[in-house]
This record gives sequence, structure tokens and C-alpha cells, in this order.
Amino acid sequence: MIKIGILGYGNLGKGVEAAIKKNDDLQLKAVYTRRAPETLTIATEGAQVKSISALESGKEDIDVLIICSGSATDLPQQTPQFAALYNCIDSFDTHAKIPTHFAAVDAAAKQAGKISVISCGWDPGMFSINRVYSLSVLPDGEAYTFWGRGVSQGHSDAVRRIAGVKDCRQYTVPVPAALEAVRSGSNPDLTTRQKHTRECFVVAEEGADLAKIEQEIKTMPNYFDDYDTTVHFISEEEMKQNHSTLPHGGSVIYSGTSSEGTKHVIEYSLKLDSNPEFTGSVLAAYARAAYRLNCEGNSGAKTVLDIAPAYLSAKTPEELREHYL
Amino acid sequence: MIKIGILGYGNLGKGVEAAIKKNDDLQLKAVYTRRAPETLTIATEGAQVKSISALESGKEDIDVLIICSGSATDLPQQTPQFAALYNCIDSFDTHAKIPTHFAAVDAAAKQAGKISVISCGWDPGMFSINRVYSLSVLPDGEAYTFWGRGVSQGHSDAVRRIAGVKDCRQYTVPVPAALEAVRSGSNPDLTTRQKHTRECFVVAEEGADLAKIEQEIKTMPNYFDDYDTTVHFISEEEMKQNHSTLPHGGSVIYSGTSSEGTKHVIEYSLKLDSNPEFTGSVLAAYARAAYRLNCEGNSGAKTVLDIAPAYLSAKTPEELREHYL
Repeated sequence: MIKIGILGYGNLGKGVEAAIKKNDDLQLKAVYTRRAPETLTIATEGAQVKSISALESGKEDIDVLIICSGSATDLPQQTPQFAALYNCIDSFDTHAKIPTHFAAVDAAAKQAGKISVISCGWDPGMFSINRVYSLSVLPDGEAYTFWGRGVSQGHSDAVRRIAGVKDCRQYTVPVPAALEAVRSGSNPDLTTRQKHTRECFVVAEEGADLAKIEQEIKTMPNYFDDYDTTVHFISEEEMKQNHSTLPHGGSVIYSGTSSEGTKHVIEYSLKLDSNPEFTGSVLAAYARAAYRLNCEGNSGAKTVLDIAPAYLSAKTPEELREHYL
Repeated sequence: MIKIGILGYGNLGKGVEAAIKKNDDLQLKAVYTRRAPETLTIATEGAQVKSISALESGKEDIDVLIICSGSATDLPQQTPQFAALYNCIDSFDTHAKIPTHFAAVDAAAKQAGKISVISCGWDPGMFSINRVYSLSVLPDGEAYTFWGRGVSQGHSDAVRRIAGVKDCRQYTVPVPAALEAVRSGSNPDLTTRQKHTRECFVVAEEGADLAKIEQEIKTMPNYFDDYDTTVHFISEEEMKQNHSTLPHGGSVIYSGTSSEGTKHVIEYSLKLDSNPEFTGSVLAAYARAAYRLNCEGNSGAKTVLDIAPAYLSAKTPEELREHYL
């Protein structure tokens, strides 16, 4: 059994907990939290809830720590800190800051003789893997990534910060015509606006100026101003009934040529009922890989690009060759 | 530059040659053939054509030998033979015999301190990778593999052996209703007949008994008797005009749950203008990986499941992390 600790018990931490239940060789030992441990009830019998400070000794009885904190401020501090003590997994997803994060985690993990796998999930994660495989097989080509239809938590949060907004769910939606053009292999040039639209379901406070809220959303820099955005005002009941889950998904479509006029289209797509549960499932599989890599004497930071597929599977290499190759 | 030799100059050998031209770090040094070398004209200036016997010294100036022979009788003999002398790549695709082939190649390659990657291509190959990633992330699920619409060379050859048949092109076609059922996440049980149909375009000899040919095709054991097959008799001109290329493709669709009632569908699909050129492109990428693995001191047989994505790419790990993760 591989003993797992989860740091952080939000949506993602709960997603990892669900994933562990589906893997017979993984065992949840403890959830670590910044909240008062006694205020937290977890779904796994026999696992403990502890303060994050318990991790600091480096003596917790876990093989891998899965860090389920936010990318913006927590992971840049926590992953290097705990990579110096345990094998770690995170889902750091601020693409532009990955090289810096990698360097910090690599130094800490190498020093400790541990493995840390950063930026696991589906993008970065399974989508990255597919971009790299496609690019490697067909170097003369282009990768297109589409997200959605699905809930963007960052965009939903941004709308919630607008005065007069009680709640919001923001869906990112790929533009069907763009998908079609890319799938045809025509390698179109597409602007941000041509690739995705955004759809907001907003619960406003009583008496709020709806036109003003809509205007503020549509012109919000970085988040919405480069997109065509639709805003729907709905009731709290409708929000609860129709928008209580966190579905997501998307596609990486790669189109390339192997010789003059000979085209190939490779598409990898995900339709996910729950973004945090799927992301948690990816993290759990890489926890297994990190443990095995470390048992073999490897150390330092890794990404999904550095780890062979067989390391992720609970099955033996012989079983994989016989039944899945 | 990584120096490549190609053994065998049929459709697949030519596909590898095309792929090498698309990769700046790969160089075709020689094509090895069982035919008289002077009878062969290849498409690469500066590369040599040599007899297969030149390989036997183990002294050819190549870093990797890509073996483009048939799985039925050639590869089981040739890959172990040359794995004892060079880093090798093959596309061995007789699924049931992979464990035996792996063991023979592994022994030879380990003894020689070389790497051999067996069973590269798209199935086995890219499809296998996707089956294993999906299974590892969502162990509670099921993988479905569909092939086509595309030309099966094995089935085309089988029909050509029937008396009265001059030429044949056999297309394997996934059943749309089966694809739809699998994509819905309903995890249906599907028989062979429910998953694929077969379509044959046949040029018959003058005066041949068409009804008899059709009957022989439809009842051919293993190849056609488990499928609904349609037979079209066409002219030689029509064959030349409409069926001169070798398109193929297919999908691996995986549907699994991360918790009670929470479903996810993962789909990897290929639409290939040319089966041999795409397969050749995969082989070329794994030649790069084999060379690098061997430079790092690794030896023995590997499959696509044992090799991390980053090994396939001409780009550095830093570039991959910065731009593709």
C-alpha cells in the first residue's frame, strides 16, 4: 500500500480522496489542513485530520503528499517547502510561471532525495502530454487547445467580486465553427475571440443595477474583454438546481503533415462530469508514479512529460504488455 | 544528427523515409534490402542502398535501425537478430505474440547493451498509450477501440488470394451507433459484429463468378465471418482513381467513473491520410527516444509504455516545460 497525505480539503482535496478509494494500492493516511482539524469531517474512515504544522517535522508516516492548494499564492510557497521533506504532487497551473516553480521544487527535492511531480491534472497534464506526443510524431503541424464547455472557477470568482453580484457560474464554450475548421486540418489562424465564448449565470442582489453588472463583466480586462460574453440573470433556486456541479472538458486537436499534401488530424478530448474529481484522479495516478520513481532512487522535480505511462498504472509491465499494448 | 538505417523499403519503409525528412536532427544513412540494391531507387539524396547482409557485421555507421518488415514472419526473426547489434525499432503488431517477441528482443538487446523499442505505431502504439493513461487515471472504467474508416492491408490481401479476384481494397468501418453508445458513457457490451462493418471493393477477372467470390469473402473464417460485409465489384480504373491511397484512423474511447454517478469520457482519435506515413512518423520519433535512452546507458527491450513523452521530442525539456506543458 502506498500511504498518501492530502494537504488542503477543498474541491480538489475531496477529488483526490474520491480517487484514492478507486485504487486498491493507495491508502489515505491523513488530510492536513490550515483550519482547526476538529472542524473538518472527511469521507474516509480510518484516516486522520491533522494541522498542516504536523507536516513540518518531515516525520509524517506518508509516502506521498498531494498538495491541493491554489496556484496563485499557496503552491509557490508550499510545494518547495514540502518537496524538501516528502515526495510531493501538485497541480500548479499558472503556465507562465512553471519554469520558476520547477526550479524551486527541483532544488528542494534533489537536496532531499525525494521526487516531486508538478503541474499534474488535465491542462497542464493530460493535454500537455498529448501536445508533446503529437508535436514529436508530426513536427510539421500545429496544436490547438479548446476548453469547455465547462465551469471556469477563476472567471466565476472574478464576477463574484463585482458589486451587486451574489453568485456566478461562468462557462467557457468553444466556438463550433473554430472546432470544425481545426478538425478539417486547414490549420486556421484563430484569435482568442474566434476560439471561445463565455457564458455567465449570475444571481444579483435585490435592487442591483443589472445593466451595470453586465457592462462590468463584459469589459473586465484579461477575463472577459477579449471574448464575446453572454450574461444571464437567474434566481438562487435556478443556480442551485442547474449549476451546482463543476463539469469541464475540452480538446487538444493537432493537425500536421508527413509529406506534401498528406495530412493527419489527432484529437484528444475530455468530457468530465467533475473537474476536481478528474484532476484528483490524475494526481492520484502520479502519486503512484512518484513513489515508484523514488523507490528506484530517482529524485528532483518532474512533470508529466518526464514520466513513462507504465509508471502510472497499478498493473505490472507484463500485464500491460499482454492486455493493453 | 542521429544516423538512421531503414530495413525494408515497402510502404512503411517509405513512410519512415518521409518522416525523417521532417526531422532536422535525424539523418537517413542507408536503406537495407533483401532485393538487389542496384534495383532500388530511394527518395533521399546522399543515402545509400545496401544489401541486408551488410548489417550482419554490426559495424554499419548507424545509431538506430528501423525495421520495416512484416510482423507475420520477418520481425520475429529479424528484430532479435539485429537487436543484438544495433538500437532497433519495430512495429510488431501481432498482439497475442507480443510477450514472446518482447522476451526474445530483450535478451538480445540486454546482452548487446543496446535499446530496442518494439510494437511502435498507432495500434499498438499511440492507442496503447492512451488505453494505459486512461485506465491508470480512472481504474473503474472500460476502454473501447474502434478502427477506421480505413484500409486494412491484411484483409485486402486475404481477398486477393480468392480465385477470380484481381485486386481488392478492404475498408474497416466503425458502426456509428456503437460509437455513439460508447461516447455517451453507457459502457455497453458490444459484439464484434456490433462494433465494425467491412466493405470490400473488388476488381474481378473477366468472366469470374461474382456471386461465388462474394460468398467466399463473406464466409471467410477470422477475416469476415464475424462481420457484416458489403462487396462492391468495380473496374480497374475506378480502383486506381478512388482507392489508390491508404487512409486509416480510429478512436480509443474510455469511459469511467471517479465516484458514484460521476462519469468521464476520454477520447483519442486519429484521422490519417496515410497509414504507412503516420506509422513511419511514430517510428522516427521512437528512434530518437531509443538513441537518447541508449546514450544514457539504458539497454534491453522497451515498448511505448516504458518511455516518457519528453524523450520523443527534438525540443529540450526546458522548451517543452515553457511552451507545451
